[in-house]
Amino acid sequence: MTTVKTNRPVPRSPKGFRDSFAGEVIARRRMVETIREVYERYGFEPLETPAMEFVDVLGKFLPEQDGPAGGIFALTDDDDQWMALRYDLTAPLSRVVAERAQDLPRPYRRYQYGPVWRNEKPGPGRYREFFQFDVDTVGAASMAADAEICTILSESMEAIGIPRGDYVVRVNNRKVLNGVLEAIGIPADAGDAPSGQRLGVLRAIDKLDRVAVDGVRELLQQGRMDESGDYTAGAGLGDGQADTVLQFVQAGADDRAEVCAKLAQLVGASAVGAEGVDELRQIHDLLDATGHGPDRVVFDPAIVRGLAYYTGPVYEVVLTFDITDERGRRRQFGSVAGGGRYDDLVKRFTGTDMPATGVSIGVDRLLAALQAVSQADLAARLGPVVVTVLDRDRLLDYQRMTQELRAAGVAAELYLGESGLRAQLKYADRRGAPVVVIAGGDEFERGEVQLKDLRLGDKLAQEITDREQWRKGQPAQVSVPRDQLVDRAKAMLRPDGD
Amino acid sequence: MTTVKTNRPVPRSPKGFRDSFAGEVIARRRMVETIREVYERYGFEPLETPAMEFVDVLGKFLPEQDGPAGGIFALTDDDDQWMALRYDLTAPLSRVVAERAQDLPRPYRRYQYGPVWRNEKPGPGRYREFFQFDVDTVGAASMAADAEICTILSESMEAIGIPRGDYVVRVNNRKVLNGVLEAIGIPADAGDAPSGQRLGVLRAIDKLDRVAVDGVRELLQQGRMDESGDYTAGAGLGDGQADTVLQFVQAGADDRAEVCAKLAQLVGASAVGAEGVDELRQIHDLLDATGHGPDRVVFDPAIVRGLAYYTGPVYEVVLTFDITDERGRRRQFGSVAGGGRYDDLVKRFTGTDMPATGVSIGVDRLLAALQAVSQADLAARLGPVVVTVLDRDRLLDYQRMTQELRAAGVAAELYLGESGLRAQLKYADRRGAPVVVIAGGDEFERGEVQLKDLRLGDKLAQEITDREQWRKGQPAQVSVPRDQLVDRAKAMLRPDGD
Repeated sequence: MTTVKTNRPVPRSPKGFRDSFAGEVIARRRMVETIREVYERYGFEPLETPAMEFVDVLGKFLPEQDGPAGGIFALTDDDDQWMALRYDLTAPLSRVVAERAQDLPRPYRRYQYGPVWRNEKPGPGRYREFFQFDVDTVGAASMAADAEICTILSESMEAIGIPRGDYVVRVNNRKVLNGVLEAIGIPADAGDAPSGQRLGVLRAIDKLDRVAVDGVRELLQQGRMDESGDYTAGAGLGDGQADTVLQFVQAGADDRAEVCAKLAQLVGASAVGAEGVDELRQIHDLLDATGHGPDRVVFDPAIVRGLAYYTGPVYEVVLTFDITDERGRRRQFGSVAGGGRYDDLVKRFTGTDMPATGVSIGVDRLLAALQAVSQADLAARLGPVVVTVLDRDRLLDYQRMTQELRAAGVAAELYLGESGLRAQLKYADRRGAPVVVIAGGDEFERGEVQLKDLRLGDKLAQEITDREQWRKGQPAQVSVPRDQLVDRAKAMLRPDGD
Repeated sequence: MTTVKTNRPVPRSPKGFRDSFAGEVIARRRMVETIREVYERYGFEPLETPAMEFVDVLGKFLPEQDGPAGGIFALTDDDDQWMALRYDLTAPLSRVVAERAQDLPRPYRRYQYGPVWRNEKPGPGRYREFFQFDVDTVGAASMAADAEICTILSESMEAIGIPRGDYVVRVNNRKVLNGVLEAIGIPADAGDAPSGQRLGVLRAIDKLDRVAVDGVRELLQQGRMDESGDYTAGAGLGDGQADTVLQFVQAGADDRAEVCAKLAQLVGASAVGAEGVDELRQIHDLLDATGHGPDRVVFDPAIVRGLAYYTGPVYEVVLTFDITDERGRRRQFGSVAGGGRYDDLVKRFTGTDMPATGVSIGVDRLLAALQAVSQADLAARLGPVVVTVLDRDRLLDYQRMTQELRAAGVAAELYLGESGLRAQLKYADRRGAPVVVIAGGDEFERGEVQLKDLRLGDKLAQEITDREQWRKGQPAQVSVPRDQLVDRAKAMLRPDGD
């Protein structure tokens, strides 16, 4: 066999990038608009920043940056300054606030929706371009800003149709973890990012879901070999140290005040630890005051969140219902949003304090979750009325019909392809057309058009199998006078038919 | 003077990239939604494609690609395949159709909104990231598809508030130009792109706006020196050839049928030229049938459109009103949308015919135009009710008030900063808050809250300068029982106040 070689490019997308077609775009738009209404009800205003930022502006905060590119898509400008596609919406926000502080209200409360890019290895459900929908308050040290983020997350989930009980907002505080580590004698971080032993402990805790308590203990101490034989080095804690960390990790409970009491014990005499516990207590009081109980927001010390820039409370939203994953196993859907307080991110630029807190909703994952639980078709939508073309010489007449429908506010299209009526009806069906207009020589002679109700046709076809619901006298196709085209089509489009 | 050197990054954006703040984001969103409604009324459905495509997939179609990067932002993947940020939304659409033809309805009618990136020299009003809003029909050779694009453009302009007479859709046909060149003995293109003499003629015509008829003649013949002394080589036409091209360029007129008659003469015996004129005649008939006269769509042979992939009709929308440009000169606002038929773009991948036509609205330029003509503030918006904090120990009470307002559907926020009441009122004003809630020790004791109507306050302040409109008995600040907070605030928010 020989292959004919051509110079033609192969139509394909880079790995980890994908297209979204009509159903998905519409479902995503509806979801995003619903969340936007929640954000706006909380008094946040929109911001849009460019896709590209200078690399030094973005900083290095991605978790486990492997490979030479450090997780970002970077390129040089003409003047040899490195730029990269943004990997989140928080670094750009910090840049905006540092650059424009004088022009912005303070606190600055903004939301931003858009794609971010990560140069990571793609996998099932793991893309290199994905959409985030962030909400942040910059310039507010008050725990009321953090409590508010938790209630926004809770209300956003319920607004898009995830019932209470199917999601939970989990809250932790980096300061409490730091306090616990201080209490067991692990030295504080030097510089921006957690390093060495401390980082090892963070990563061990973050694996609780995957390796369970015994696995975390191995990772905290001597290291762990997984089933495939891969070895992960341990953080080198002693038995007593590991015990305390494991107590901390398992201190989560429904009673938020009880969790605070346990944590107060574990941080011992650590000042930063006590501060962290106090912050959690304030958040608890504020949530209680607005009726957000542990059925919506819980405190869970096992929450780490990967990004290195968090300084205080961290949050995530977990969907608690089971789905079947790509390997056919039942498991919890997992995290769909994450965030926290990042008091030092603007200071990186300006040297002056600028407390900030916020969260990022992972729009693609959340949409996948909605699709997994929703009985209804999220993509359900009404297509346009399709005006078919039986007689090409009458194109101007068909065009006029189409335009009359549009002028009356009815989405309509003239069939623009080359095929016959049968294929045109198939096309109309594929487009989700509710009604098709048909007119040939006979109809033009009589001054009439045929209107075919595709939805009613579907319904009648279904009803034949269910004789109880059989209804008479509803023809799916009617002939109407040409000058009644618009009125009769509109009548057919009403939910109760004509 | 000494400068203290720090390791702090400077908060800045790459040249040609910019942020959009609340007013602009909201105005753009409204405009885009209005255009989307027009696109949907015509039966188009949404598509979203990734920011990044392989470079060979994008192809080389940008006009006058200077510099080594060829106008695109490119980088290599791990496996050394060159990727780039898309420079338009047409190349990705062609890739999608070539890749997924079997899964898509045919004709495939889609719209797409999103940013595109061009690695060009930025200038005033000229950005390297900008938003396009495209609508295309793929798989339809019929001129009805092209006529429809013209009516969509016309209706989109009017829908967003640009009145008839302030815009015009200008249409030309590449085939007619090719016919004219054939008629005067300039050889046809070899390969994909126009080359050599033909390209020189295209570029000369495209400069009509800037250099007028005499300048175009110089560019068509011996070449031209501009005021700054820069020399552009000429296309080398003889006198007779240049005469014919200039007659062609100036053949535009309000009477579309008359333009077609003139063009039929100029293309002489050229078959492709005659085909182009016939296509224009069909478009004219279709536009007439739907009442789109020359007050909305004209034929203008001077329209070139820079992109190299057009094969037939090309269109652009020009705003005809004057604005003052960045150099203080009065001039027409100019082009805000452009497109055309590109029958060979999908064929590049598949080798089989796939006719297509469409247009791209330049969203940023169109928004700037709207802002230039609109008396009303496009960004006008109502901010949230701001609940001020007089007594920090009452934070939970203030939080409850805020949450009650939100639960009633009122956008509201708790002031989360550290400042006193005066600064809080200034903040509320800056946020566009219609109403501010104020409660201190006295109010809590009496079980009341103060509601301050900032809009009424503004109005009263204005009215003092206009005694005719003076109204009494409308206090801008009232004390109301705590349990009537929500009802009274909602009453204040109604357009007619309480």
